Amino acid sequence: MNPVEFGRISSPFPAASFATRRGPVDVIKVSAGSRTSSVAGAIAGVVREHKRAEVQAIGAGAVNQAIKATAIARGYLQEDGIDVICIPEFTSVDIEGKERTAIRLVVEPR
Amino acid sequence: MNPVEFGRISSPFPAASFATRRGPVDVIKVSAGSRTSSVAGAIAGVVREHKRAEVQAIGAGAVNQAIKATAIARGYLQEDGIDVICIPEFTSVDIEGKERTAIRLVVEPR
Repeated sequence: MNPVEFGRISSPFPAASFATRRGPVDVIKVSAGSRTSSVAGAIAGVVREHKRAEVQAIGAGAVNQAIKATAIARGYLQEDGIDVICIPEFTSVDIEGKERTAIRLVVEPR
Repeated sequence: MNPVEFGRISSPFPAASFATRRGPVDVIKVSAGSRTSSVAGAIAGVVREHKRAEVQAIGAGAVNQAIKATAIARGYLQEDGIDVICIPEFTSVDIEGKERTAIRLVVEPR
């Protein structure tokens, strides 16, 4: 998996890239190997453009990277005067035909 | 470590229990072995009483339990008409004389 991978919620094929995504907010998929600074930059970019970002992580390592990235993104966005909060929720995702429980972090201005 | 351990931010001796804590908001310390439902109940209780809870976790397993517990606590509090959000931040804690980086989740009404 790429350090930061974007995909639409409803699609098993994450095709959109950071540079080209448009329309509905893409989900930022985080893995245990994702770099927190890269993910943080992605979160900040999506929040600046869409006023909201969704971060998805499966497993403890991925959730840890996702939450650290969100903390870093808060710092980036504070420099722009944007005070973001985070709403954690459970979500089900289909991974190769198997249903897995993921953590979704919704990041949006307070 | 107990499933849910409370301690004051400034004290290396987390002595206060859930039943006896008073005054400033105690930190809910979460470990990788903490039960999410217990931590969620603690978060909900502290938010109901103090309008704010602080959850502290060190390491991926603990952070994962903490964020899952926060998602569950959101559900508990929504039943009371309280819509909580979460603010993740880095913090330094002293563990047996060594400085460790912890994740602190501030949970408060939106």
